[in-house]
Amino acid sequence: MSATAHLARFIATSSWTDVPDSVRHDAKRSLLNWLGCAIGGSNAPSVDLAIESLATFSGPAQATVINRGRRFDVATTAVVNGVASSVLDFDDTHLQTVIHPSVPVASATLALAEHLAVPGDVLLHAFTLGVEAACKVGNAVSPEHYAGGWHVTSTCGVIGAAAACARLLKLDEMQAACAIGMAASQSAGLSEMLGSPTRMFNMGHAARSGFMAAWYASKGITSSTRALEAPRGFGNAFTTRSDWSALTDTLGVTWEIAANAFKPYPCGIVVHPVIDGCLLLRERHAIAPGDIERVEVTVNPAVQVIMSNPEPADGMRSKVSAEHCIAVAMAQGAAGVQQFTDAVVHDPEVSGLRRRARLLCSDTMAKDAAAVCVVMKDGIRHEAFIEHAKGSAEVPLTDRELEDKFRSLVAHGRHGGDAGRIIDMVQGLETVTDAGALARA
Amino acid sequence: MSATAHLARFIATSSWTDVPDSVRHDAKRSLLNWLGCAIGGSNAPSVDLAIESLATFSGPAQATVINRGRRFDVATTAVVNGVASSVLDFDDTHLQTVIHPSVPVASATLALAEHLAVPGDVLLHAFTLGVEAACKVGNAVSPEHYAGGWHVTSTCGVIGAAAACARLLKLDEMQAACAIGMAASQSAGLSEMLGSPTRMFNMGHAARSGFMAAWYASKGITSSTRALEAPRGFGNAFTTRSDWSALTDTLGVTWEIAANAFKPYPCGIVVHPVIDGCLLLRERHAIAPGDIERVEVTVNPAVQVIMSNPEPADGMRSKVSAEHCIAVAMAQGAAGVQQFTDAVVHDPEVSGLRRRARLLCSDTMAKDAAAVCVVMKDGIRHEAFIEHAKGSAEVPLTDRELEDKFRSLVAHGRHGGDAGRIIDMVQGLETVTDAGALARA
Repeated sequence: MSATAHLARFIATSSWTDVPDSVRHDAKRSLLNWLGCAIGGSNAPSVDLAIESLATFSGPAQATVINRGRRFDVATTAVVNGVASSVLDFDDTHLQTVIHPSVPVASATLALAEHLAVPGDVLLHAFTLGVEAACKVGNAVSPEHYAGGWHVTSTCGVIGAAAACARLLKLDEMQAACAIGMAASQSAGLSEMLGSPTRMFNMGHAARSGFMAAWYASKGITSSTRALEAPRGFGNAFTTRSDWSALTDTLGVTWEIAANAFKPYPCGIVVHPVIDGCLLLRERHAIAPGDIERVEVTVNPAVQVIMSNPEPADGMRSKVSAEHCIAVAMAQGAAGVQQFTDAVVHDPEVSGLRRRARLLCSDTMAKDAAAVCVVMKDGIRHEAFIEHAKGSAEVPLTDRELEDKFRSLVAHGRHGGDAGRIIDMVQGLETVTDAGALARA
Repeated sequence: MSATAHLARFIATSSWTDVPDSVRHDAKRSLLNWLGCAIGGSNAPSVDLAIESLATFSGPAQATVINRGRRFDVATTAVVNGVASSVLDFDDTHLQTVIHPSVPVASATLALAEHLAVPGDVLLHAFTLGVEAACKVGNAVSPEHYAGGWHVTSTCGVIGAAAACARLLKLDEMQAACAIGMAASQSAGLSEMLGSPTRMFNMGHAARSGFMAAWYASKGITSSTRALEAPRGFGNAFTTRSDWSALTDTLGVTWEIAANAFKPYPCGIVVHPVIDGCLLLRERHAIAPGDIERVEVTVNPAVQVIMSNPEPADGMRSKVSAEHCIAVAMAQGAAGVQQFTDAVVHDPEVSGLRRRARLLCSDTMAKDAAAVCVVMKDGIRHEAFIEHAKGSAEVPLTDRELEDKFRSLVAHGRHGGDAGRIIDMVQGLETVTDAGALARA
């Protein structure tokens, strides 16, 4: 059976009872992390611009823009929530492909689920299938596809969004194949845009186009049913090498959502082991920031190349300043969304510590490892070695850490509601009778 | 100056007085042909499905779906008119790239022009710039881009639509560069879809995404300003070879819209010289269909490969039946939209003539040439040689032929209005105070 047909059958015939308990739990973790990012990002200027741009063309109030008190049609809501949930760059990462699957998939799925008023388990199942679709397609075309200039989260995410929405719309195998086809033919996104707001819109549009593909298919519009593997199809157009057995051999056997990782800190990932070491030493030795002479960190040279910047101009740029990350970890004992604001960048204690941070490069240091040495004014040296950063495949965030991250994002988004109640809702999603309650929470 | 900056400056600073009179006339020809296709296709089942799918999400009634008495928001209208104007496969062709530029560009431009209520000359200027943008980008990436599996009309058309809408929205150079960037990052469309209704939606979405890109840019959303030429930009992602001097050296110097060609017959282009020959002989010798013994045509082998089918099942498939084309030309003295219906396919006189058509292949016959010999029952042989088909670069459709085509499309679309009045409106577009009148006509 061809890759497209295989994926379509999986979408149309998967049973919730086929999804192992641990995978269901992983799906809830991904959904909670996504929801936190959407709440945390909901007041960003790019979200304001998205709402201002799209309100003019929105149809009926069918779905909720998270934490904004606005309701738009499903397609428009998918775009805005896609922008909001990606703007902090704090969302999940499927490490094998570098796809951030939840942004395109959940943004589409929750908007449609709310419109259809489906129960929580139906939402969770559709979301899971969507993440599998996006990441399995990604596996089949990686790494050449990303290397070719494609923003893989949006190019593969649109197929994931289509898969999830196809499930919510109860498409049969043939209709699901057409949804995949229309999504593949709307797949878009250049990685040249990664440094600009268009990055977020790439992902919002992937959510929208995936939803629309499934919707069109539900109305009887057809496409090629060989969109992935045909000579003029997705694989051949989008990459120099594709291996569809990576999809056909593993769909429903291994679960990509179980390999989804979550960032503990909303900054460049290469500096994460350094932050781990700083936080560890600060707590272990009850270090007072004023007693620090300097902080020396030994890191993979990539940290120096990508993130050395002792004087970031603003909050946005502090996310790619290794020195700023070290400074906030030592000064404030945290490196969450609140530590990357303009105000914190200009805080005297933080800027003082940035100037006392030293990056030492070592070719033998792994990318997810770091050695941290805090030299105190009295000459004492506190040292720690981090073998694998928190949030890596080896040291995934615990449920508790993920919940703390969620609470911090809810606070950052000035949500005003009870984060604990939303966490409970996600954890008990199978018993929620109307999944839209999640969007409105 | 880079390609993106060059194109942005052209869009933002072009003056209508810089556009030669002959090019303005060519622009009106392209717009008239597009409008005819949109009217002629307006009642197709795919248009019904597009309207049914999109009405659920449409915003306010801002623009008119041609010949349907429906009004949707600008973005939705652009999709539906894109589907309608491409469904008959009778639209224009920029021969160098095989782009059909008017479908994405005019579908977006007219919808926004109606919403903004701009004068006719502003519409015509924006449309012209959009066609230039689409085709110049196409020239820079052809032929490798199309060969790679990309539906070039939509992948380049989205940039043309963005350019035209950027002009209507009076974007400055920097904003226009962002509109190009967002459009390039939404560029999509697989040529695998050419045999299915998704083909039309590719083009409708290109119109929509191009419009949205310009709209976003007008609201202050930014993108990379090197979208075309950057290492991870459009050229490198979408093709193995791009030459941006094809754009930078010729923008505003040579005009691609002047090289836009129009099909005289809504069927596969390789059989067009055969139809020319049949119509010529039928008229010259007043041939009665019942007196024909057989029709022998000598053609390039491509005709045999692509279009030999003496028994097409329905109207759709008769468009790729060379025998059907010969039969209707001899039986009805025409090969317009009315000759490719189910009813005509099953007409006894037409099916009888299809069985008496003979295709003889010759490697030395050019693709746009044919020799036609009608052998009468009394043994007389009428012969004609067509060196270049009507609608080719060498023998473009005359204004009169284009108007006849328009009238035939208006009749096919059951418009009910006065085709002559619309032709007059397009010819006098500079004096129309509200371009939206064209959409509502």
